[in-house]
Amino acid sequence: MPIVQFAPLSSLVQPALWHKLSDLKIDVLKLSDAAVPIHGSYTAGRSVKDRESGQEISLPCNLTVGADSFEDNYTPTHGSVSAVGTLKNFNTIEEFKAADKTALFNHEAQTVWDDIIKTRSTAQLNRFLLITFADLKKYKYYYWFAFPAFVSKPAWDIEDKGWQHATEEFDSEKLSAIHAQLRGQSPPLPHFLIREGASGNVEIAPVEQYDTFYASSPPDKQTIAFLDPSADPSNPGWPLRNLLAYLRALYPETTSKLRVLRWRDTEVPASPNIPWKSQIGTLTVGASTVDPASARPSAVGWEKNPQGKLGPRVADLAPMMDPTRLAAQAVDLNLKLMRWRILPALDLEKISSTRCLLLGAGTLGCYVARALMGWGVRTITFVDSGKVSFSNPVRQPLFEFVDCLDGGKPKAEAAAESLKKIFPGINASGHTLAIPMPGHPIPHNPTSLAQAQVDVQKLENLIEEHDAVFLLMDSRESRWLPTVISAAKGKIVLNAALGFDTFLVMRHGARASSLSTGADGKPHQKLGCYYCNDIVAPADSLTDRTLDQMCTVTRPGLAPIAAATAVELLASLVQHPDRNHAPAPPPNTNANTGTAEEEEGLSSVLGLVPHQLRGFLGQFKTMPLVGGAYSKCTGCSEIVLQAYEKEGFSMLLQAFNDAKYLETLTGLDKLYEEGENALNDIDWHEEEEEDDF
Amino acid sequence: MPIVQFAPLSSLVQPALWHKLSDLKIDVLKLSDAAVPIHGSYTAGRSVKDRESGQEISLPCNLTVGADSFEDNYTPTHGSVSAVGTLKNFNTIEEFKAADKTALFNHEAQTVWDDIIKTRSTAQLNRFLLITFADLKKYKYYYWFAFPAFVSKPAWDIEDKGWQHATEEFDSEKLSAIHAQLRGQSPPLPHFLIREGASGNVEIAPVEQYDTFYASSPPDKQTIAFLDPSADPSNPGWPLRNLLAYLRALYPETTSKLRVLRWRDTEVPASPNIPWKSQIGTLTVGASTVDPASARPSAVGWEKNPQGKLGPRVADLAPMMDPTRLAAQAVDLNLKLMRWRILPALDLEKISSTRCLLLGAGTLGCYVARALMGWGVRTITFVDSGKVSFSNPVRQPLFEFVDCLDGGKPKAEAAAESLKKIFPGINASGHTLAIPMPGHPIPHNPTSLAQAQVDVQKLENLIEEHDAVFLLMDSRESRWLPTVISAAKGKIVLNAALGFDTFLVMRHGARASSLSTGADGKPHQKLGCYYCNDIVAPADSLTDRTLDQMCTVTRPGLAPIAAATAVELLASLVQHPDRNHAPAPPPNTNANTGTAEEEEGLSSVLGLVPHQLRGFLGQFKTMPLVGGAYSKCTGCSEIVLQAYEKEGFSMLLQAFNDAKYLETLTGLDKLYEEGENALNDIDWHEEEEEDDF
Repeated sequence: MPIVQFAPLSSLVQPALWHKLSDLKIDVLKLSDAAVPIHGSYTAGRSVKDRESGQEISLPCNLTVGADSFEDNYTPTHGSVSAVGTLKNFNTIEEFKAADKTALFNHEAQTVWDDIIKTRSTAQLNRFLLITFADLKKYKYYYWFAFPAFVSKPAWDIEDKGWQHATEEFDSEKLSAIHAQLRGQSPPLPHFLIREGASGNVEIAPVEQYDTFYASSPPDKQTIAFLDPSADPSNPGWPLRNLLAYLRALYPETTSKLRVLRWRDTEVPASPNIPWKSQIGTLTVGASTVDPASARPSAVGWEKNPQGKLGPRVADLAPMMDPTRLAAQAVDLNLKLMRWRILPALDLEKISSTRCLLLGAGTLGCYVARALMGWGVRTITFVDSGKVSFSNPVRQPLFEFVDCLDGGKPKAEAAAESLKKIFPGINASGHTLAIPMPGHPIPHNPTSLAQAQVDVQKLENLIEEHDAVFLLMDSRESRWLPTVISAAKGKIVLNAALGFDTFLVMRHGARASSLSTGADGKPHQKLGCYYCNDIVAPADSLTDRTLDQMCTVTRPGLAPIAAATAVELLASLVQHPDRNHAPAPPPNTNANTGTAEEEEGLSSVLGLVPHQLRGFLGQFKTMPLVGGAYSKCTGCSEIVLQAYEKEGFSMLLQAFNDAKYLETLTGLDKLYEEGENALNDIDWHEEEEEDDF
Repeated sequence: MPIVQFAPLSSLVQPALWHKLSDLKIDVLKLSDAAVPIHGSYTAGRSVKDRESGQEISLPCNLTVGADSFEDNYTPTHGSVSAVGTLKNFNTIEEFKAADKTALFNHEAQTVWDDIIKTRSTAQLNRFLLITFADLKKYKYYYWFAFPAFVSKPAWDIEDKGWQHATEEFDSEKLSAIHAQLRGQSPPLPHFLIREGASGNVEIAPVEQYDTFYASSPPDKQTIAFLDPSADPSNPGWPLRNLLAYLRALYPETTSKLRVLRWRDTEVPASPNIPWKSQIGTLTVGASTVDPASARPSAVGWEKNPQGKLGPRVADLAPMMDPTRLAAQAVDLNLKLMRWRILPALDLEKISSTRCLLLGAGTLGCYVARALMGWGVRTITFVDSGKVSFSNPVRQPLFEFVDCLDGGKPKAEAAAESLKKIFPGINASGHTLAIPMPGHPIPHNPTSLAQAQVDVQKLENLIEEHDAVFLLMDSRESRWLPTVISAAKGKIVLNAALGFDTFLVMRHGARASSLSTGADGKPHQKLGCYYCNDIVAPADSLTDRTLDQMCTVTRPGLAPIAAATAVELLASLVQHPDRNHAPAPPPNTNANTGTAEEEEGLSSVLGLVPHQLRGFLGQFKTMPLVGGAYSKCTGCSEIVLQAYEKEGFSMLLQAFNDAKYLETLTGLDKLYEEGENALNDIDWHEEEEEDDF
């Protein structure tokens, strides 16, 4: 009698599995290589007819894994049965290669065996192992499946007539009855018992019910059946091996001869002319050389690769991916890596979802935009009134030489276009807009007035539509209008300004009425804005400037430092639970996490959230400063904000046109009149600190 | 008798003048608006024949200024005479507009008058004034010429026959004689006296010789002549006005009636059929209403603009300039502005001429290159072995999405191409090169060995050809080979390395044998290199890395800060007189210029030149550190450098292949064996300092 040979399972990995594995790795596993449950499925073996020879060609016995393989409530598709498995993803290719595969395999085989012996369950019979290394940077996935199957010693023989059409033993009526009963099973049975009754009826039952189901059934009415993934007429599929091992281990007395149905008829033949596909045969086995109930049989089952060798396979997904999506995933990956080891508590979404309005698309604006993109920020909007000039590209990293030709492209729009060229997934736009300024009166004609009103309205809308406003202009007075609007609307304001080798980066304090409270229950100190140290209102500083005053004459390294500092300040701020209301740490606060500082709310997961930072490139130093809000501030005091909220554009127009309006409104004028003594009353942090240098 | 009317001078500015003015402004004048001497010239007036009407049309009386107008030894072109002038360039358009033009004009007129009265010289008779505002960012030049001419009261009359052909009074022979005598004058005379002798001969003399030359000459043999820029038959050119004023002021007795030759024959007519162009007429004037010798006559002479109004003109050079040159000038301008007000002592050339080799074209390399370009550095060379991947562009500011397609462009070459797109004037190149590393043995076959030798040779050549080497790679061991080669060749080495939210930027110390001495005559402390704190040799840290270790996981703002800091450190270093040998200031040194620190050589014109800078983004702090060189250092110790210099590639090969070679060579192995006590001997600055945080 010929020995029964089994057709091995062949893994079929849908690309979606690798995407899911990437997500799992990036978001959940990170550096862990712990075993992860995975599900696969297989269906009845299929064959196709070769068009030339007319021969039936069996398709591989596929075990399929895909998009839903990691889901807890995995359900195989119609006609399939599920297989449980273990995925072990290694962190490096070296670890993957060096893994002790024998141990891993044996561990899985032991699990299957233990389940047979200890729980008498068939749930683990189709258990499989998948070891992987995911090269997430290159979208290459190295993997190796094992389908542990116990080796029967001696081997099973098949009776001489071999595998026959099932209809040799079961007529169509009985096969239809089996099909109907199988359809009623949920989840679908990968293997089952068949019993023929005295009346010629057939019944099926789960394999676990062997004892009871066959208790009063004569052996010639018993048939062991399994959904056979093999369409090969001579070789039944791999799942039969562990089914036989299960029966031999648990019912050694009654299972040395078994009638086996290789079930493949997931559909009843559509017409009587079409034959049933299932096959039947009678298997016999000699007495085991070991006690199957005590000693685990040896197991085999590592999958061969396409070269026919025992070795891993590689799935290279890069060529089949949409480059734009590849870029988006790559950027995402780089950010999520931060959470793997360093900062699991980092909430990237809080940063990336912050819609950023950049007022100024010059040196600072370009560098700020780039650092924001590095953080995955998805919405970046530029406002600028200028055009790209020849001196810009070497200092403004979103412009090229061609942008300067023919008079220069509008800077805001050109910067937005550049962002899209860098990362097509970005939502970037640019608006050419001149921001009205105090000290620069609106010419007294209907056209100019209407234009100013349109410009203010546009700026108000833009600020409304964003979460954070960056003040990156090159004059003092141009920051006034957005300071007022942003304060009124409760937006985050980041401010950066450059000297020759010094910079100021600060966040504006949140409005007092919305301040959070400290540990002592008292509201935190209201932090100042850009104008809080001024004793005069912003005025025209632009007219009559010499060339070196018109150009921002700075050490070239200053802008990238200041811009990146401003973006990192935003990143730290939005990580702080109080966000805009986060209190400023006093200078010399330590930032170690888990310390008193963090508990007191002075530190975010990214560290300190200072109020102001002064950089001194001549000494390569950056110093944190704190400045309180000033009740007579022309930028953020309640009297200014409420006048704006009440009177709207007409109030702004007065501020633009009347040099004294803001000073009168805030009372700064009186203070000024009171003479130099008044200087002593002012919270003069900034200048005091500067004296130190 | 008709009044004599004069054809005004008309300025003709060659564009080259504006380029010269730009240079003058940027390099010399800077913020000064002091008067600058300028030269112009005019030639005999010319006319062209209208093709349709056949009429002669006079061309304007051009006073030309151009490329050589600011030269001390200005020489007018052949046939021209020179005019001296004053240029006053204003700093802002507002100042230009608001300038007291009457005062400026009167000052010039007074200068001319004083020169007549006090020195009796004719040198200033053609004096002119040019006021300008140069908008160097837009290549627009606002300017206004004045040609001060004294008004005769009463006006001069011309006798009834008016201006006649000169041949009416002088035959061809005499005119030829005048021409010949004029050619002998150097410099050419703008005006001269003619005397006819009894024998019919003619002689000429400078106007200053009026007294002597005409002493014995009857009035009807005297002729006053001037090179006439006017070809208008009725109106003599402007220069005649001041010549007449000169004569009336100094010789009132004898000059109320003058025969005047308008000389235009700079060439003798080519044939007898061609007429002489010069004209002659007799002018008379009544008694002056004021005493010309005491009171300065009023003067006129502001030029009208093309609209026929008294107002400035604008020259817009932008459209006619080569964009590449425009970009080069714009970049240059932005840098030179630093010297105008802030740092006159800054030597930009020392920075811009530094040839920079960037090892690594990743996040750091891209940002370093941009900051170097901002400083005007002209030679930037990248070395990298990688290709642009999809995660790069958002963090590496020389790459775009398209650079990632089709497997990605080689990074070094792509970065160099990008620099050229930003600034076509840059000398940028990229080399794809894998730097051999200790701990990464060269495979033992002839091909690999030959390749390693070629790679080392290429790196040696590249380092040789550059002045500063930036180590911007992402592994520790890849910095070893360039550290050794650069130390041996005495190159500046800047090193930048990133953690998650910390960075190290440092300059390697110069070789001890070439160290400069301090104020006390002792050599400065030799500063350490990147490896000076190590007690083990660099080894393989790349194999078996997890994804987050392979990618540089950092806060996105960190790289621009570290890169810009490294470039600014280089800028400060090359400004220091000791350059590479500049001693490091102890932490907490002040950088104020003119202080003891600067005198002690601890500060450059740009401030401090620290040895190491550690940045801590969690606290927004940067701290300067100093670390001395270590005598057993595997990177810069004499034993290593001398072994390299003596054995060359074979020594390097041992270092690559034999993990213990460098430790044995330096004696680190013995130190290690001596146990933990040894740790106390090591100059362990770095770690000590870090404990503070």
